[in-house]
Amino acid sequence: MSIAVSDAINLLNRTPKLLRDMLEGLPDHLIQANEGGETWSPYDVVGHLIHGDKTDWIPRLRICLSDTTDKTFQPFDRFAQFEDSKDKTLQDLLSAFEQIRTENITALKEMKLRNEDYQRRAVHPALGEVNLGQLLTTWVVHDLDHIYQVSRILAHQFRDDVGPWKAYLRIVQ
Amino acid sequence: MSIAVSDAINLLNRTPKLLRDMLEGLPDHLIQANEGGETWSPYDVVGHLIHGDKTDWIPRLRICLSDTTDKTFQPFDRFAQFEDSKDKTLQDLLSAFEQIRTENITALKEMKLRNEDYQRRAVHPALGEVNLGQLLTTWVVHDLDHIYQVSRILAHQFRDDVGPWKAYLRIVQ
Repeated sequence: MSIAVSDAINLLNRTPKLLRDMLEGLPDHLIQANEGGETWSPYDVVGHLIHGDKTDWIPRLRICLSDTTDKTFQPFDRFAQFEDSKDKTLQDLLSAFEQIRTENITALKEMKLRNEDYQRRAVHPALGEVNLGQLLTTWVVHDLDHIYQVSRILAHQFRDDVGPWKAYLRIVQ
Repeated sequence: MSIAVSDAINLLNRTPKLLRDMLEGLPDHLIQANEGGETWSPYDVVGHLIHGDKTDWIPRLRICLSDTTDKTFQPFDRFAQFEDSKDKTLQDLLSAFEQIRTENITALKEMKLRNEDYQRRAVHPALGEVNLGQLLTTWVVHDLDHIYQVSRILAHQFRDDVGPWKAYLRIVQ
């Protein structure tokens, strides 16, 4: 059994506010910091979530529900935010994410998903056959994964300053 | 160099609201869920944070700043919440955490910490010599560690329902 639609909506609805409360008003040296190399900053993560809500989750749910013969998803561009977010402030991104997420929750409610819809199948371009229940559950877990990531990126900035407590703090290990 | 006092206050101030954003209004089967065995639920984590704010962080900062000869911290009881939270609702805990955290941020501001205070030393009962800068940084990273944990506990409940996407979701690996 995959996630209940009510739990999915309950959790998906929280993410824009949660990210606002995590990030709004933090100094740039934290908003733009990453975990080294090509890793992402909190700012990059918000852009990535917007791109997913614009191009990925709802269109893929619609493909699962449709009776078209070509049920292969478009590949998801994991780097689109580096172009899309250009010249935008964190405030712009947080507001854009709130807006698209609100629209998408409305679209999700309008689908009036029933238990039998969870078995409707489609094809992921890299992962192969998937079903609607897995896709809906993944949307929720993907949000949580990025909340997890943002808390870890912030903690990373202080990893050398906790002294011997590092042994107790899983987030900096 | 440890965390700036202004960044510490900025981040510590967010945590009660973040936990409310994450948890208030979730069904009990998520609030009380854990990661198996003796691991903690989101409900347990909020109780643990209250206990830390009541007994640990500010008293330890005061020991660092004091001129007493016995500068050994009291051990922290990591299981106190199982007794303290009895008969309390999640709402009770979220409100109690908000209140104690607000008081503690006031206390932290009143300490008017200067750079030289960061070197003031004390003795952790298990970790040995530590300094005030490490303690203040650890307070912040400890909050982030538990936000990280709560997002992971929630994701854990859906780990078997994401199908092949599991390969892409670090939080359930």
